[in-house]
Amino acid sequence: MAKLRVGMIGGGGPGNFFGMVHTRAISIDASRELVAGALRSDAKAALRAAKDYGIQGFGSYQDMIAAVQSGDIALDYVTIVTPNFAHYDPAKACLQAGIPVLCEKPMTMTVAEAQDLARIAKRKKVPFVLAHTYTGHPMMMMAKEMVRNGDIGEVRKVEAWYNQGWLATDLEKSGQQQAAWRTDPKRTGISNCGGDIGTHAFVAATWVSGLAVKKVSARLNTFVKGRVLDDDFNVIGEMENGATAIITATQIAIGYKNDNGFRIYGTKGSLEWHQEAAEKLLVRRGEHDETYWIGTGVEPESVGSYLRVPAGHHEDFFEALANLHTTIERLIRKKNGEKGVPEAFDHPGVDEGVAGMKFVKAAVESSKKKGAWTRL
Amino acid sequence: MAKLRVGMIGGGGPGNFFGMVHTRAISIDASRELVAGALRSDAKAALRAAKDYGIQGFGSYQDMIAAVQSGDIALDYVTIVTPNFAHYDPAKACLQAGIPVLCEKPMTMTVAEAQDLARIAKRKKVPFVLAHTYTGHPMMMMAKEMVRNGDIGEVRKVEAWYNQGWLATDLEKSGQQQAAWRTDPKRTGISNCGGDIGTHAFVAATWVSGLAVKKVSARLNTFVKGRVLDDDFNVIGEMENGATAIITATQIAIGYKNDNGFRIYGTKGSLEWHQEAAEKLLVRRGEHDETYWIGTGVEPESVGSYLRVPAGHHEDFFEALANLHTTIERLIRKKNGEKGVPEAFDHPGVDEGVAGMKFVKAAVESSKKKGAWTRL
Amino acid sequence: MAKLRVGMIGGGGPGNFFGMVHTRAISIDASRELVAGALRSDAKAALRAAKDYGIQGFGSYQDMIAAVQSGDIALDYVTIVTPNFAHYDPAKACLQAGIPVLCEKPMTMTVAEAQDLARIAKRKKVPFVLAHTYTGHPMMMMAKEMVRNGDIGEVRKVEAWYNQGWLATDLEKSGQQQAAWRTDPKRTGISNCGGDIGTHAFVAATWVSGLAVKKVSARLNTFVKGRVLDDDFNVIGEMENGATAIITATQIAIGYKNDNGFRIYGTKGSLEWHQEAAEKLLVRRGEHDETYWIGTGVEPESVGSYLRVPAGHHEDFFEALANLHTTIERLIRKKNGEKGVPEAFDHPGVDEGVAGMKFVKAAVESSKKKGAWTRL
Amino acid sequence: MAKLRVGMIGGGGPGNFFGMVHTRAISIDASRELVAGALRSDAKAALRAAKDYGIQGFGSYQDMIAAVQSGDIALDYVTIVTPNFAHYDPAKACLQAGIPVLCEKPMTMTVAEAQDLARIAKRKKVPFVLAHTYTGHPMMMMAKEMVRNGDIGEVRKVEAWYNQGWLATDLEKSGQQQAAWRTDPKRTGISNCGGDIGTHAFVAATWVSGLAVKKVSARLNTFVKGRVLDDDFNVIGEMENGATAIITATQIAIGYKNDNGFRIYGTKGSLEWHQEAAEKLLVRRGEHDETYWIGTGVEPESVGSYLRVPAGHHEDFFEALANLHTTIERLIRKKNGEKGVPEAFDHPGVDEGVAGMKFVKAAVESSKKKGAWTRL
Repeated sequence: MAKLRVGMIGGGGPGNFFGMVHTRAISIDASRELVAGALRSDAKAALRAAKDYGIQGFGSYQDMIAAVQSGDIALDYVTIVTPNFAHYDPAKACLQAGIPVLCEKPMTMTVAEAQDLARIAKRKKVPFVLAHTYTGHPMMMMAKEMVRNGDIGEVRKVEAWYNQGWLATDLEKSGQQQAAWRTDPKRTGISNCGGDIGTHAFVAATWVSGLAVKKVSARLNTFVKGRVLDDDFNVIGEMENGATAIITATQIAIGYKNDNGFRIYGTKGSLEWHQEAAEKLLVRRGEHDETYWIGTGVEPESVGSYLRVPAGHHEDFFEALANLHTTIERLIRKKNGEKGVPEAFDHPGVDEGVAGMKFVKAAVESSKKKGAWTRL
Repeated sequence: MAKLRVGMIGGGGPGNFFGMVHTRAISIDASRELVAGALRSDAKAALRAAKDYGIQGFGSYQDMIAAVQSGDIALDYVTIVTPNFAHYDPAKACLQAGIPVLCEKPMTMTVAEAQDLARIAKRKKVPFVLAHTYTGHPMMMMAKEMVRNGDIGEVRKVEAWYNQGWLATDLEKSGQQQAAWRTDPKRTGISNCGGDIGTHAFVAATWVSGLAVKKVSARLNTFVKGRVLDDDFNVIGEMENGATAIITATQIAIGYKNDNGFRIYGTKGSLEWHQEAAEKLLVRRGEHDETYWIGTGVEPESVGSYLRVPAGHHEDFFEALANLHTTIERLIRKKNGEKGVPEAFDHPGVDEGVAGMKFVKAAVESSKKKGAWTRL
Repeated sequence: MAKLRVGMIGGGGPGNFFGMVHTRAISIDASRELVAGALRSDAKAALRAAKDYGIQGFGSYQDMIAAVQSGDIALDYVTIVTPNFAHYDPAKACLQAGIPVLCEKPMTMTVAEAQDLARIAKRKKVPFVLAHTYTGHPMMMMAKEMVRNGDIGEVRKVEAWYNQGWLATDLEKSGQQQAAWRTDPKRTGISNCGGDIGTHAFVAATWVSGLAVKKVSARLNTFVKGRVLDDDFNVIGEMENGATAIITATQIAIGYKNDNGFRIYGTKGSLEWHQEAAEKLLVRRGEHDETYWIGTGVEPESVGSYLRVPAGHHEDFFEALANLHTTIERLIRKKNGEKGVPEAFDHPGVDEGVAGMKFVKAAVESSKKKGAWTRL
Repeated sequence: MAKLRVGMIGGGGPGNFFGMVHTRAISIDASRELVAGALRSDAKAALRAAKDYGIQGFGSYQDMIAAVQSGDIALDYVTIVTPNFAHYDPAKACLQAGIPVLCEKPMTMTVAEAQDLARIAKRKKVPFVLAHTYTGHPMMMMAKEMVRNGDIGEVRKVEAWYNQGWLATDLEKSGQQQAAWRTDPKRTGISNCGGDIGTHAFVAATWVSGLAVKKVSARLNTFVKGRVLDDDFNVIGEMENGATAIITATQIAIGYKNDNGFRIYGTKGSLEWHQEAAEKLLVRRGEHDETYWIGTGVEPESVGSYLRVPAGHHEDFFEALANLHTTIERLIRKKNGEKGVPEAFDHPGVDEGVAGMKFVKAAVESSKKKGAWTRL
């Protein structure tokens, strides 16, 4: 089984956390390797960064795509790790060139852009996976399977949240890069907190439950003086089956790091999951509480085929992201006609990307209209 | 120090959980004793129940109050443990007779009734404590003191919740008493879930933070077919200082028992508390997480004077309720001019009762108007 | 149902924690009342203390027993809360007078004394309960029932522990009463840590498993300079069925309060319990972990008949001790021929008291002989 | 910075878990790559396995070493992942050839072999790291630093444990490979449970505390019929400073996976760590409990330089093992004179390997002599 060859767009800047995160996620499995990259917007800097990475460098993503098309280099897929504003253009170019894409979230800056990518990916049948990393946690996958199998009955209510404290002060004024671009409307879009982490809570609520949110009533806050965008994001949603979703996110919860999680209440039982204890799924049906562990063999093959270790030795953040790379890898190998490729899990893709953009837009609008119920 | 003599109104019915709960809370401290009661609405049954309790029986609360006024019996205070609809009349009668009251929550059926009780209690300067049992947990008291002392800075956001699963099915149709009266508008008022447990979350949000909720946007649901009142209750509130409150309660969360708790995010730190692990308070200021234990000596005297055991042996539900009895006891002893009585903690009283009724009313109205922001 | 009348021996000294603890445990249930006491060794002080308690006072336990025998006062049972050295004499006198006894642990100062009490209690058929408070926790009772029912198969290994930190320094030199008598061989016996808290771990290991320890290999330490007795206690035991018991206790574990608990590993599953989260029992059979809650209805009637609240509102320390009072109450009422008295749980009594004394003695001897295996 | 080139010995058998684990640990950091291997004892099978891995294959480790010596291939270090009995020969051959080694634990089958490897490694100054994976967890490193810095004062007592349930039945008779070789004296040595997981507890006790165990009193059990070696391992040890160590391990604790951890009690505070919640370190100094998180910046540079993500996104099993590869990488790069190489952490090496072998031997002997204290 030949290794898939991966290219990366973005990820080469100083302190660019996500470039290295994806690099590790690609290489932790022996079936993929990062071979090329257009790692920065400045051509010279991009080439220098590629040298540091030890991969073939390109001065721009256009150059890299052109090299693929001319046959100068073979790439099986591209992963896009630029800031939000720089997702759409390269993703579109890759898809038009028929190159599969694993793209960081949120997918784009606007709903229109997201819809455009969705149209192209579907028309050209190019695999596209949206890097909602947490959905790669086996227990989040397990939860989705349990809802799908009817284990907790009909879903009545979903609570999903993401609490952080790192933006409780005006960190962006200190020159901290991660804070700077996330709080800048030009680079991050119409919402900071909602776009950055509210979308994670949204995906937890909708992807795990398998239910779309139809309309929302929202209250966004900006607690830190001088900040333009929201740093606190609160939404009540109505789901397609009439269930209620409570989706909240904040960046001013001092001492909380990545407190993302969800609870789903059904007519037969409840599920609860916490990103910071990702290896466990809490299942409640009545009398006792049950704690599921990954790797005990209770998981269906759709989840089990992603596991790297048996129960008791945890996989965590990097492995979750690696699982998304595994999904696009499986989609590509299947498409290429390879035999014996395990089924790819239905991780978030273009549809979830569009839904996420619509969600953030509707929430921002609703909040401006004092919480008026707004359709997605 | 003579024991305070306590009378009880209600609490004598079959399976009346709360009668025995208060009896235990009264007698766990050696400074009080239950001596009399008008335990049921039917006079004969009331007298029979009192005999079972081993206390002096009265056929009605009116009779009991009359006996106090005539000097036939001495009572230092009365505790009211009837269902919601039967709080107002006896509470009013007691207050008018100058008898201190510890009353179960929610205080009344309507805002007007609550305001009436507040007026009388204040005019006549009669001690009144509202039995929000959880506020008797030393760690909830500790949290209030920490906010008051500025330990977490200015409050920006409060989350308070109460999740239960016992009404996930139509239990009221089975004849279960507790379910029957709580879901019956005539006996419980305009809200089931909101009134019964939403008020606990509301008190957690407001009493601990010391901040009033000014207006709310709400969505109430009734998930179980055939039920008239809400069994799911979701509110976004705006607090007097501009902070946001997320107050949710549900009775359809299968497997959850009394999952009540809160988080308060301030400009300097965060507090988190869970009723089902009541002995701990989670304090976060940044780097480490801290877990406070009751009884280690870290608590101020205002909290410490309520403790019965040192750290590591937990006090819990009965002791929390007993602490509210201790508060009314201290108020009474102080008023009586006894010396050496420790300061009473400012547990919920008439003002919190009025605020709770306004909150439920505003939430019900807002929900009917599709979440329109509604003032309390 | 008439209230049982209870007398107390000891418990009246300044800062005597256990006197008030038992008083609360007696009165939290409406079926018992503390009516008399010989609360201190000094007669005058004893009478004064009784006045403070609001009960009938006696200058000595002999006087109190004589009053019972002469019919001057009726007592249904006596609870003994003196320091270790003052258990034997009054317990013996009560038993000889036919008065049931609930006695603090450890039962006596020597094995011979313990055996003597056991002989008398059995010959005269007088109820005797040993106040191993934690065995009153419903989840400890539940664990015992599960082992008895074969739920975890044949027991192979037991781990039981009790970790405290309060004697990590020479607190006894500061005049702290609790520290002073516990570290004084004249008042506490041959072992401090082993006798005071090692016995709790021993009871957890043997009473829950239903298995006696036959012989032990021990290492006792005294870490704090100037202390005569052990403050750290480590035992490997062989149980009657060949199972291994690891029983450890320490008082130098800074920051640990009453970290008592056990794990029992059987051929079909495992049980785990922690005193500081007493309301939960962890059950493991393989794939999932299960957490049992008290009050969900899963418990058998033998346990359920002791519960005061449904699941989610915890009973804790006082209620656990109250359950031991309930047990002696049931034994007495049964003996008195009352009808409808629920079955008393087989809480620790004279046999467990003798075993505990033998255990401490054998451990002390083994430690002196460098861990040589020593029979109980 | 050129990638280090790594060879692997063993790891190519069917279901050989550890081969893939090391492969992932090598490649998760971009600074190393697996390039060659002698993956099985059978030459043909070894070459086939290497082809599957996509690396250069050798029919034997001797061939691979010869190729290095002849200059046919460049290898910076070799990782040995064979079963216990096949550690010594290849490790010795590598060291003699001057090739650095990262070797799975336990180091060898006998103390003599371990001492031999230590002698050679020291004489030839070849880096050698022992793969005690858990010591790569940043919080275990943090704990070692805190003890070293005196944060908890002088160590008085250490508890370390490793509980598993996978060998509670005679799994080895089913043909399960991992169970088969571990329970076979020829392939695993004189101890199964002690050697396989007791050594992890031993390393936790000694490496973190920085204190050697001088002598032990042990009780080993074999609970499963037909098994030759121990499946339960209990040791009381005396440390060089007089501290007591309680070191236990079992494989019959049904439902427990990799429940490894430790507690260290010092004169100023206590530390507690659990492998199954590896990202947290519990620190107790008295009043509050503190929970440290990796990546908050509280860690010293010696630990922080190993971290890949900030707090709240956990690194776990693979990353812990990768950290040991980072350590040998740093040792090699330093030795090679590279500049700017961060300091290598003092992870377990030959000395810890020798101590571990002595520990298991002394425990086996002590157990045979009924727990007689036996020097290491």
